[in-house]
Amino acid sequence: MKSDIEICRDTTLTPIETIAQQAGLLAEDLTPQGTLKAKVKPAVLKRLADRQEGKLIVVTAITPTPLGEGKTVTTIGLAQGLAKINRSVIACIRQPSMGPVFGVKGGAAGGGYSQVAPMEKLNLHLTGDIHAVTAAHNLAAAALDARLYHEQRHGYEAFSEKTGLKALRIDINRIVWKRVMDHNDRALRMITVGKNEPGKDINGIEREDGFEISAASELMAILALSHDLADMRQRIGRVVLAYDLDGNPVTAEDLQVAGAMAVTMCEAIEPTLMQTLEGVPTLIHAGPFANIAHGNSSIIADRIALKLADFTVTEGGFGSDMGFEKACNIKAQQAGRGPDCAVVVATLRGLKANSGLYDLRPGQALPDAIFEPDSKALDAGFANLKWHINNAARYGVPVVVAINRFPQDTEQELTTLKRMIEGEQFATPVEVAISEAFGKGGEGAVELADAVVRACQQPANFKPLYNLSQTLEEKLMTVAEVGYGGRGVELSELAKQQLAQFKAQGHDNLAVCMAKTPLSISHDPAQKGAPRDFIVPIRELKLCAGAGFVYALCGNVMTMPGLPEKPAYLALDLDEDGNIIGLS
Amino acid sequence: MKSDIEICRDTTLTPIETIAQQAGLLAEDLTPQGTLKAKVKPAVLKRLADRQEGKLIVVTAITPTPLGEGKTVTTIGLAQGLAKINRSVIACIRQPSMGPVFGVKGGAAGGGYSQVAPMEKLNLHLTGDIHAVTAAHNLAAAALDARLYHEQRHGYEAFSEKTGLKALRIDINRIVWKRVMDHNDRALRMITVGKNEPGKDINGIEREDGFEISAASELMAILALSHDLADMRQRIGRVVLAYDLDGNPVTAEDLQVAGAMAVTMCEAIEPTLMQTLEGVPTLIHAGPFANIAHGNSSIIADRIALKLADFTVTEGGFGSDMGFEKACNIKAQQAGRGPDCAVVVATLRGLKANSGLYDLRPGQALPDAIFEPDSKALDAGFANLKWHINNAARYGVPVVVAINRFPQDTEQELTTLKRMIEGEQFATPVEVAISEAFGKGGEGAVELADAVVRACQQPANFKPLYNLSQTLEEKLMTVAEVGYGGRGVELSELAKQQLAQFKAQGHDNLAVCMAKTPLSISHDPAQKGAPRDFIVPIRELKLCAGAGFVYALCGNVMTMPGLPEKPAYLALDLDEDGNIIGLS
Repeated sequence: MKSDIEICRDTTLTPIETIAQQAGLLAEDLTPQGTLKAKVKPAVLKRLADRQEGKLIVVTAITPTPLGEGKTVTTIGLAQGLAKINRSVIACIRQPSMGPVFGVKGGAAGGGYSQVAPMEKLNLHLTGDIHAVTAAHNLAAAALDARLYHEQRHGYEAFSEKTGLKALRIDINRIVWKRVMDHNDRALRMITVGKNEPGKDINGIEREDGFEISAASELMAILALSHDLADMRQRIGRVVLAYDLDGNPVTAEDLQVAGAMAVTMCEAIEPTLMQTLEGVPTLIHAGPFANIAHGNSSIIADRIALKLADFTVTEGGFGSDMGFEKACNIKAQQAGRGPDCAVVVATLRGLKANSGLYDLRPGQALPDAIFEPDSKALDAGFANLKWHINNAARYGVPVVVAINRFPQDTEQELTTLKRMIEGEQFATPVEVAISEAFGKGGEGAVELADAVVRACQQPANFKPLYNLSQTLEEKLMTVAEVGYGGRGVELSELAKQQLAQFKAQGHDNLAVCMAKTPLSISHDPAQKGAPRDFIVPIRELKLCAGAGFVYALCGNVMTMPGLPEKPAYLALDLDEDGNIIGLS
Repeated sequence: MKSDIEICRDTTLTPIETIAQQAGLLAEDLTPQGTLKAKVKPAVLKRLADRQEGKLIVVTAITPTPLGEGKTVTTIGLAQGLAKINRSVIACIRQPSMGPVFGVKGGAAGGGYSQVAPMEKLNLHLTGDIHAVTAAHNLAAAALDARLYHEQRHGYEAFSEKTGLKALRIDINRIVWKRVMDHNDRALRMITVGKNEPGKDINGIEREDGFEISAASELMAILALSHDLADMRQRIGRVVLAYDLDGNPVTAEDLQVAGAMAVTMCEAIEPTLMQTLEGVPTLIHAGPFANIAHGNSSIIADRIALKLADFTVTEGGFGSDMGFEKACNIKAQQAGRGPDCAVVVATLRGLKANSGLYDLRPGQALPDAIFEPDSKALDAGFANLKWHINNAARYGVPVVVAINRFPQDTEQELTTLKRMIEGEQFATPVEVAISEAFGKGGEGAVELADAVVRACQQPANFKPLYNLSQTLEEKLMTVAEVGYGGRGVELSELAKQQLAQFKAQGHDNLAVCMAKTPLSISHDPAQKGAPRDFIVPIRELKLCAGAGFVYALCGNVMTMPGLPEKPAYLALDLDEDGNIIGLS
C-alpha cells in the first residue's frame, strides 16, 4: 500500500470553494487560503441562526496503546461513510501540533484512504492558528517579565510616576504563566530566565521558569471554548498570570496586554475548512492535547457544522476517560449542548495490548503474538473496552463500537469480539460495527455509518458527571470516582492550599480538567485493563480562569514532551521537485 | 489627520487577483490568502526567464533618529509616485517583526497615505513566514539538545548501537545555535536550559543558552538570500549548530534535521503580494533587521519584481552604513546584481537631530526647537547627509536625495538644504527632490519619481566594497575603513581565535555582516554627524555558513530587544465590531 502522503498526493482534490458551497457556505462566509483551505467566519452563525442543529457524534476510543487504534482514521472514515449513504456531514477535528509531527507520533490527519487533505498542510502550520496562540501567550510572558523588571528597577512609586501606570507589585515567586513553544523540547521544561553578566541587570530579573508545549496553553483552551471574538477577548482578560505581593491575582487585563493578545489571535478564531480524501467538508480548529489539556476541537467549529449538516463527527483525544470525559464535562457544559452519540474505537490488537499480558515498552519492537489470534489476551483486554462503553453510556448517550479492522485480523476473532459486546448489558443502546476506513475509505465505513444513524435515532439523554455549582473538590472526586472508577483523590499539600485559595477568590464554580496519563484509566500507566481501587493523586492545580476550568496535574504529567532518540524529523525532507517526503 | 490604521481602513482596496494581473502575474503563479494577500510561486521566474530586468532602486537614509525619517513611507510613496507618472513599478519590502509592533517602534507598513495595506495584516503574522522561520530554527535547537542528551545518557557507542545513528559527540561548551522568538523579551537573553529536579536527568543536560529575536536567525538571512527552494535546502544543511569534541562543525545536515527545517520553511520561500493604498503591487518577503542581521528583503522577491516591472523599489534598513552597505556587499554579491540607483531619505528635523547639538534621550520629550528653523544645527547635521550621499556614491550608483517634508518645515529651510546639496561635488550624479508622500501619497512623490527616473537613465557602475576572495579580516577592515570611514577594526581575543578557526575550516571566502548600532556611522551611538578616527571593536564573530556570511558583533549589540516601560501593546485592542485599534 502507498504511504499516507503518497495516497494524499495521488488524490484529486476539489477546490475548497466547491466544498464550501456543497456544505452550504457562501463566498462571503469564507477567506480562502489557497485553493484547498479556507477560513470560515464565525459570523456565519448569525446567518444560520434559525436553522435546526444536526446530530453531534463524538468519537472516542479504548485506552490507547503504542499500536495506534486509528481514532482519527475512524472519525474521518465515519464522515466519509455517512456521505456515502447520502447523509449531509461535516467532520470537526483539532489542528495537529508540530511537536508530535517531528517527534514520535507523526501527523494527525488520519491515514490511508481516510485522511484530511492535503495532509502536509494540516500537519504543518495550516493557517497559523497555533503560531498565533504561541505568539499571544509569549507576548503576555514577555510583558510580565518586562513589567516586573521596570517596576523593580524604578521602584513602584517612581514607576507609576514616570509611566502613569499603576504598579502591579508582581510577586516574583508567584508567577504562574510560563512560556510556550510548539515543539517537543525537554531542555525548556525547567529553565532560569533573566540571567545577567556579573554586576549588570539589563536582562531583567532572574527567576525560575519553563516552557510548555503550545497545546497546553490556556489560550489554546480559550480558543477552543470561546463562543465568539468578544467572548474570547473577555476570557483572555480573565487569565491569571501571576499574583501580587498581597496575594491578589494579576490578570492579562491588569497588565493591559489582553487587547494585544486578542488582536494576535483574532484570525485564529476562524476555523479552517478543508476536505477529506473523498471530499467531505472538515473543519479544523484549535489543538489542545487531551492529556495535558482538554483535548477537543472548538465549540465554534462544532456550532457551525451543526448548523450546516445533519451529522457532525468530532473526536476527543485518547480514551473515553480523557478527551470524551472533557468533551462532556468541560466542552458540552460550556457549549450548552452535549453529544447525541458516542463512537468507541477498538481494535483486536489494541485490546490485546490492554490485557497487560504482553511486555510492551516504548521504543521496542512489538511481539508478533499480538497480531495473531489470542483468546486469552482478548478476554483480558475486553475489560478495557467494556469499561469505555460503560463510561460513554454513563453520560446518557447511545454508543456505537467501531472495530477498526487491520489486514491481519481474522474473521473469527472479530466475530468473537462482536459477540462479547452483544452479550453484555449497558445503560444505553450499544451497536457494533466493523470499520475498514483505512484501506477502503468511506466505503469501508458504511456499516459504521449505518449504525451511527440508527444510534442517533435513539433518544439521547445527555448528562455531565457534575454540575458547575458543586465545589472544585467535589468535582475532582466525582471525576476520579464516577468518571474513572477509582476510590477518590489524594490532594498534595500544595493542591489543598490551592483549592482553598481558588475557593476564596471565587473560582469554585469552574470545571476541572484532569491532566493525567492516557495510558491507563487510572493515573498509573502500569495499570491496564479496567483498574479499580486506585486513588488519583493530585499533585498541583492550575487556575485557568479564562478557559473556565481548574487544571489538575495527576502524578507526573509532562506539559512539555521531549524528542526521542530516533525522531520522526529524520525522515522528513523535500524531493527534487520540492515535494515533502517522509511525513506520515 | 486620521491615524494610519484609519486611513488604511477607509481606503477601498483592489482584489489581490486584479493587482497580480496588472503586475503581469497569472492565476497559476499565485496562492491567494484571502482577497488581499497572495503568495507568489518562485516558479514564475522560469516562465519569465527571457524577460529583461527593470531597474533596481534601493532606498536608504541618513543616520536614524528617534524622530523617524520615514524611509518606508518614502519607499512606498516613491513606488506610488512612479505609478502616477505611468511607470510600471513594484515595491519590495521586509515583513515586519512583531517584536517592534508590540514594543517601541510600532508597525512597519509605511504611514499616512503611503502604506502597504491592509497594514494590520502586514504587521501581524502576515502569511506566517516569520513563524515558519522561528519554528524551523527552534526545531534545530530542540533536536540538538535532545541529541546531546540521548548520546550522553546512553554513551556514544551504545547510542549508535541502539539507533544506528552516528554519535555526533557534541561539545556542550561549543553550541552556537541559540533559540529564537519573534518578541522583545529581554528575560530570554541569558537563560539556563535543561535544569532538573535534584537527582533527576529527564529534562536534558543543563547548559547556558539564550534566545534572539527571529529577525536575527540565520534562517531568516537564508530565506532572504536563497535563489530557490533547492538552494534554501542546501544552505540550511550547511548551517553550523555546534562543534564536536574534536572541534569539527556539527551542521544541520549532520544532525539530519535540515530536511525537516526546509519542510517547515517551504511555504515561507514564496513572497507575499500585497498592495499600497494606491494599488501599487508590493512584494513582502523575509524580515532580517539591519543592525543585528543583513536588513534587506529577499533576492527572490527582487528577482520576481525586476522581471515584472520597469522599476523595483526596495529599501535597506537604517542608514546607508547599515542596510545599504549590506544590500551592496552581501545581497548584491549573492544575487549577482547591484542597484541602479540609491535614494537617500533625509528630513530637516533628522539632520538637526544628527547635529549633536540637541540633548535627545530615549523616552524623553523632544525639544521644540528641533522643529523650528535652526541653521546652525542644519549645518552641523548636513555633514551626516553628505556622508551618506558619498557613501551611496562610493558603490558607483547615481543618488537621489529625498527630503521627506513634514508640515512644520519651512520652504526657506528646505531650499537652503537643497542648495547645500547642490553645492557639493559627488562621485556619481546626485539629484534632490522633496517628497510629501506621507500626506499626499503618490501625488506627493511625483517630483521624487521624476528624479529617480532621470537617475536611472544615468549609467550605473555598481561595485561592492570588497571581493569575496579577500580574507575575512580584510573584509572587516574594508567595511570599517572604506565603508564607515574609520581607522580600522580592533579584534577581541575571541574574535581573533574565531577568525583563525573560520579560515582553517575554509570559510574565509564568506561576506561579513556587521552587527553594530544604527545610531551612529561609527560603532558608538554617541558619535553624531560624520565621525572620524574611530576604531570599530569586533567583540565576537558568528559563522553563518548557510547564509554565506560571518556576522561581526561590534560593541554591545543586542540580538534580543526588550519591552519598554510603556510598550505599544498597551494601546492595542479590538473594538466592538472586532476591528483592530491602536496599531500605528
